[in-house]
Amino acid sequence: MFLLHPQLKADTFFVAKLQLCELRLMDDSRFPWLILVPQRANITAVHRLEESDQLALIRESSAVSNLLSAMTTPYRINIGALGNVVSQLHWHVVARSQSDACWPGPVWGCGERIPYAVQERDGLINRLQSELNRRPVQA
Amino acid sequence: MFLLHPQLKADTFFVAKLQLCELRLMDDSRFPWLILVPQRANITAVHRLEESDQLALIRESSAVSNLLSAMTTPYRINIGALGNVVSQLHWHVVARSQSDACWPGPVWGCGERIPYAVQERDGLINRLQSELNRRPVQA
Repeated sequence: MFLLHPQLKADTFFVAKLQLCELRLMDDSRFPWLILVPQRANITAVHRLEESDQLALIRESSAVSNLLSAMTTPYRINIGALGNVVSQLHWHVVARSQSDACWPGPVWGCGERIPYAVQERDGLINRLQSELNRRPVQA
Repeated sequence: MFLLHPQLKADTFFVAKLQLCELRLMDDSRFPWLILVPQRANITAVHRLEESDQLALIRESSAVSNLLSAMTTPYRINIGALGNVVSQLHWHVVARSQSDACWPGPVWGCGERIPYAVQERDGLINRLQSELNRRPVQA
């Protein structure tokens, strides 16, 4: 059975359930940073997913990348899966700007995260949910 | 026309041409680190590829992840695309161990790369090429 890892649950907020993944917002106000967690049990790497799920993941990743690009006009979108700290497979989609706190380095392991103020967080989650309702993600 | 970015060319060695990507070895002996470069012109992000190319990329990524796992039995495989330094789309597949130089942080932006000795490099490239001949990658 799929269960969200407690560390991921603690560090992120629920945004939406997509066909394959649960979409969550990383609680780090330094970057618009989304996390896709495939709702599959005991998976630690993309190449361990069934092929159909791998294809769904990249489709959902690109849909979320497009959504984040439209909302934040970033300089780059960084995507990928590491799993060095939390082993449950989770996929990062991070909007980067050349003036952000970790540029041009990666966000992972860079300084301390700065949690959102409640109002900013709720505003961002509401915008994401509205966009997803308007343009549902096809996996 | 697809042209490999000069910085990628300088930092990596040719391994093979797959259906979508050119497969290259990062010249950093600290990690078994492969780079997949989709042979498409003027692309800087996965979500800008045509959908069929996105699916081919994830298939080639997983095939290369499986190959690297079989060769090096890593603790984790880190995959992803950043493009913060070199904008041409290139996809990382990195075998990580808990005793490597950057663990548990990411390899990007971590210290200085340590180029391979020629013999070690050629040995690794030969092994990769033999494995790819034995089990061709389906995109």
